[in-house]
Amino acid sequence: MRLPFRLDARDPGSRARAATLSTAHGPVSTPVFMAVGTRATVTGLDPSDLAALGAPVVLGNTYHLMLRPGPEAFSRVGGIHRFMGYSGPVLTDSGGYQIFSLAGDRSLTEEGALFRSYVDGRRQLLSPERSIEIQTAIGSDIMMVLDECIDSTSTEAATRAAMERTHRWALRSLAARRDPAQALFAIVQGGIVPELRRESAAFLTEHPFDGFAIGGLAVGDTRAAREDVTRASAELLPEDRPRYLMGVGTPPDLLQAILAGVDMFDCVLPTHLAWQGTAFTSTGRVKVTRGSCATADMALDAACTCPTCPRFSRAYLHHLFKCSEPLGPRLLSLHNLHHYFSLMREARQAILEGRFAAYARAKLDAIDRHEHSGRRLGPAPSLSELG
Amino acid sequence: MRLPFRLDARDPGSRARAATLSTAHGPVSTPVFMAVGTRATVTGLDPSDLAALGAPVVLGNTYHLMLRPGPEAFSRVGGIHRFMGYSGPVLTDSGGYQIFSLAGDRSLTEEGALFRSYVDGRRQLLSPERSIEIQTAIGSDIMMVLDECIDSTSTEAATRAAMERTHRWALRSLAARRDPAQALFAIVQGGIVPELRRESAAFLTEHPFDGFAIGGLAVGDTRAAREDVTRASAELLPEDRPRYLMGVGTPPDLLQAILAGVDMFDCVLPTHLAWQGTAFTSTGRVKVTRGSCATADMALDAACTCPTCPRFSRAYLHHLFKCSEPLGPRLLSLHNLHHYFSLMREARQAILEGRFAAYARAKLDAIDRHEHSGRRLGPAPSLSELG
Repeated sequence: MRLPFRLDARDPGSRARAATLSTAHGPVSTPVFMAVGTRATVTGLDPSDLAALGAPVVLGNTYHLMLRPGPEAFSRVGGIHRFMGYSGPVLTDSGGYQIFSLAGDRSLTEEGALFRSYVDGRRQLLSPERSIEIQTAIGSDIMMVLDECIDSTSTEAATRAAMERTHRWALRSLAARRDPAQALFAIVQGGIVPELRRESAAFLTEHPFDGFAIGGLAVGDTRAAREDVTRASAELLPEDRPRYLMGVGTPPDLLQAILAGVDMFDCVLPTHLAWQGTAFTSTGRVKVTRGSCATADMALDAACTCPTCPRFSRAYLHHLFKCSEPLGPRLLSLHNLHHYFSLMREARQAILEGRFAAYARAKLDAIDRHEHSGRRLGPAPSLSELG
Repeated sequence: MRLPFRLDARDPGSRARAATLSTAHGPVSTPVFMAVGTRATVTGLDPSDLAALGAPVVLGNTYHLMLRPGPEAFSRVGGIHRFMGYSGPVLTDSGGYQIFSLAGDRSLTEEGALFRSYVDGRRQLLSPERSIEIQTAIGSDIMMVLDECIDSTSTEAATRAAMERTHRWALRSLAARRDPAQALFAIVQGGIVPELRRESAAFLTEHPFDGFAIGGLAVGDTRAAREDVTRASAELLPEDRPRYLMGVGTPPDLLQAILAGVDMFDCVLPTHLAWQGTAFTSTGRVKVTRGSCATADMALDAACTCPTCPRFSRAYLHHLFKCSEPLGPRLLSLHNLHHYFSLMREARQAILEGRFAAYARAKLDAIDRHEHSGRRLGPAPSLSELG
């Protein structure tokens, strides 16, 4: 049984679409931004906070969760939902990206990745089969195949080799899945080489995956290359299954990808920037640690209805960050996630009303204007700086 | 106009009493435990969390708040309630204890304490008048006089000198107060010397303070000495005004002090231990970082109705602490404060029903039994270790 996926609307002026995924833990309306909850927690937030924000999906990470608390912790209580006290949909990444990040500290063979646990120093093998076994224990609603991630600046030969291994691993993952109630997505690779991306999409879409992700971006590529690859890859993926752009990105990145027909997103940016004191607002980014916020008895964003803006001033948030008080990052995380979720809700509404192309253009222009006028705030950190 | 204080009941079997303080930001039922919010935040908690817990009073600190955000930040918005988004009663400590803790880094004269700001290195004078001026800007419902705190192991001569200066400073504080809507409490000093405590209480109660605190305890004294001084000091204080034991303590400390007639308490213990991974439960303390919690799919305290216990297992809390995830200390802070607030609510109910002496005895026995049977968990940290 394939993950039920219903197309609710197509935007007449772009490739954007609105859809509904029906997971074992409830429906998910797309376009959707998934909150990153790497270690079975969205840093600093409680499942009741996520419910209050209307967070549609939480994203866990197989690599981190296999090391701590370990798959047995999930088996014991019947999965991540009971473990973390969260009843909504969960997607687990396979750990491919984390293995890529380990670089010299792991050996990669056709079998899988061998590395030492940062928890107890023991040798661990993460193979496609082991990743599925762990994700089965975690009990996520959507599992990802283990892929071989590679730097966007690699040679074409190396990029092809990683892509071909990703394909073999995808088929091994499919064969290893036991319970079809847990959906399984494949990951299109091929770096920034259009021909390889085409080949990857063609190969993977021949097999009965529940959805397809576009992987290997935001790892050293430029924004232009990322947009080109996203556009070209999304076109190659079937209309009747969800498309997920992994690890990307800023609000403009998301709008561009929705224009290209992408449905699902995740990124550490809103929560990671929150911990650094930066808020997304309707008039550009605000760094609350700046001196100018010390006396600013105004909301972060007067137009915002998040749990933070109507109750706390920039001056108070500035104070909390200056004192390293954990309430500061918590309030900014709530705000930034609300900002992302609101953007997705607005986008969906615009698609349903057939006006997404115009909406996205106006929104992109406004963000561009604010980022330009706000340049004195300094450049935003790049995704690669954020890890 | 003195702070309205109504005695609701006296326990027939002890000196315990239940009362109601009517502050400018609402009534406070005693016995009361006040949550420590040193820097205009109870670490990691939101004012809405405090409301959900039924936190009766938040305690700010004049020394810390004068340095950051500074009194102007409060003047600008009309006080701490608006600044931190909290509408309940606030008490501010004067900074006397912090000056004591600075030890060699400040010079103390009859005028006040001179020290350098840890924020910008500038010289600051904290005098009785300046403390009141700052507390006026903060807009707390209850202000404390600046006192000279001294180590319990000091000589009698030094203890007497500090006590006499505390008396002179108390009168200067009273003279400096501008708005009687902000209540002002004096602080009884005199170390662990019964005669000095008597002299201090006799002197201070001659003046129109709204309440009286017992200060200078939990600074190197033994538990027995602390209990003796508390008992003796509480007896010397007028029936018709609130009695506040500063910076103390564990649940047994609180029960003993209530038996002695104390009404108000504050202590960093429940929140500080929460950040270290220790929870108070109805069956003794639980250190969630211990290996035994890793597989414990049970609540911290099955009998507890706090926001944490019904939703999260010890195993999940263990996981959060092992990952240094801030949700861990947050969930334990909610639990520990709930534990303290529940103890105070139970104590009040027992007093109202005239059965507090029996209640306290049973409770003290039970805690003693649990701490004894739980000895393998290691000793609880002392208050002085916790700062």
